[in-house]
Amino acid sequence: MKLLVATTNPGKLKEIKRILEPIGLEVVEPTENIEVEETGTTFLENAYLKANAYYDKFKLPTLADDSGLVVDALGGYPGVYSSRFHEIEFGGKEPIIGSRDETNIRKLLRLMKGREDRSARFVAFVVLYFNGKGFFAEGECKGTITESPRGQGGFGYDPIFKPEGFKKTMAELSPAEKDAVSHRGKALRNMSELLSKCKL
Amino acid sequence: MKLLVATTNPGKLKEIKRILEPIGLEVVEPTENIEVEETGTTFLENAYLKANAYYDKFKLPTLADDSGLVVDALGGYPGVYSSRFHEIEFGGKEPIIGSRDETNIRKLLRLMKGREDRSARFVAFVVLYFNGKGFFAEGECKGTITESPRGQGGFGYDPIFKPEGFKKTMAELSPAEKDAVSHRGKALRNMSELLSKCKL
Repeated sequence: MKLLVATTNPGKLKEIKRILEPIGLEVVEPTENIEVEETGTTFLENAYLKANAYYDKFKLPTLADDSGLVVDALGGYPGVYSSRFHEIEFGGKEPIIGSRDETNIRKLLRLMKGREDRSARFVAFVVLYFNGKGFFAEGECKGTITESPRGQGGFGYDPIFKPEGFKKTMAELSPAEKDAVSHRGKALRNMSELLSKCKL
Repeated sequence: MKLLVATTNPGKLKEIKRILEPIGLEVVEPTENIEVEETGTTFLENAYLKANAYYDKFKLPTLADDSGLVVDALGGYPGVYSSRFHEIEFGGKEPIIGSRDETNIRKLLRLMKGREDRSARFVAFVVLYFNGKGFFAEGECKGTITESPRGQGGFGYDPIFKPEGFKKTMAELSPAEKDAVSHRGKALRNMSELLSKCKL
């Protein structure tokens, strides 16, 4: 089956191909990006909205993901606002200095300053949508928020997230190590397991 | 496969059995009801929350649905608030006289009084969840809001909803006619089509 991926992010695309092509799926990229308003209050809903919008335009079964960091001491924030955390009201807006990722991290560390409970988890939902129906799969990676950023790999909050059982941050792990523990890796393997049982 | 249904509503249960048992699924009822807070802002999310909660408790693949009436002239309300429309702030709370259904209908007709655009649709999402993954299917039934209630069948807003192509309200249709056009009937058939292609 041909599968459209609702992303033009080369890193995500590579990860998705690596996990889904071995079960016989042909993963294709969209010829153009669509701006999808992520109005959902959950990862599942936002992944669904993205998959739905791309399916409507390209008429191909579409895979989309949404993911983020859920911090217990912040009542679940940044959550679905992970990628634009610096610009939302909660915790005060953060002036952009450096990249967006750096600004988001600075805001998160400011809000976590002096807190004892540093538990957090990365959560990912993957949705495959076509013609009024589809599949979904979730993945989670538990860990803690460090006091300061470490490591050059990955993206987003990886430099301040230490997965359970590791002494390194997500940004200090090798790509293979990250795939094995990451929320998106788990969600994609969950999806792959489900799809391998279906003849579409 | 054994399938738990996250409802103790006998009408829904019968409908679900009628559509899913022919494809070889064994549909079972929960031994007790779980109170699930429907905090989602969409039907998909609420169906997911219900399926997830029942799965966590009973450890069986669980099917849940969420549905409601979306009225264009009311900006999509009552939507996910359909069953408790009378008690929400939007449009003013409605004093309970008669049943909850009757009170909801009275509020809706009050808000629709004198409006020309009476277009609306019933929307249903069905989710089948197990162990971090699952299936979903949607169904829609387009129609219009009548000026006053008619018919004794069905439940909810059925007496004031006239499906496209019909002169009767949903509450005046026979059960078989309703199944054929209803949002839940369509969502369940979509789900059944998907499941019939999978070996779980």
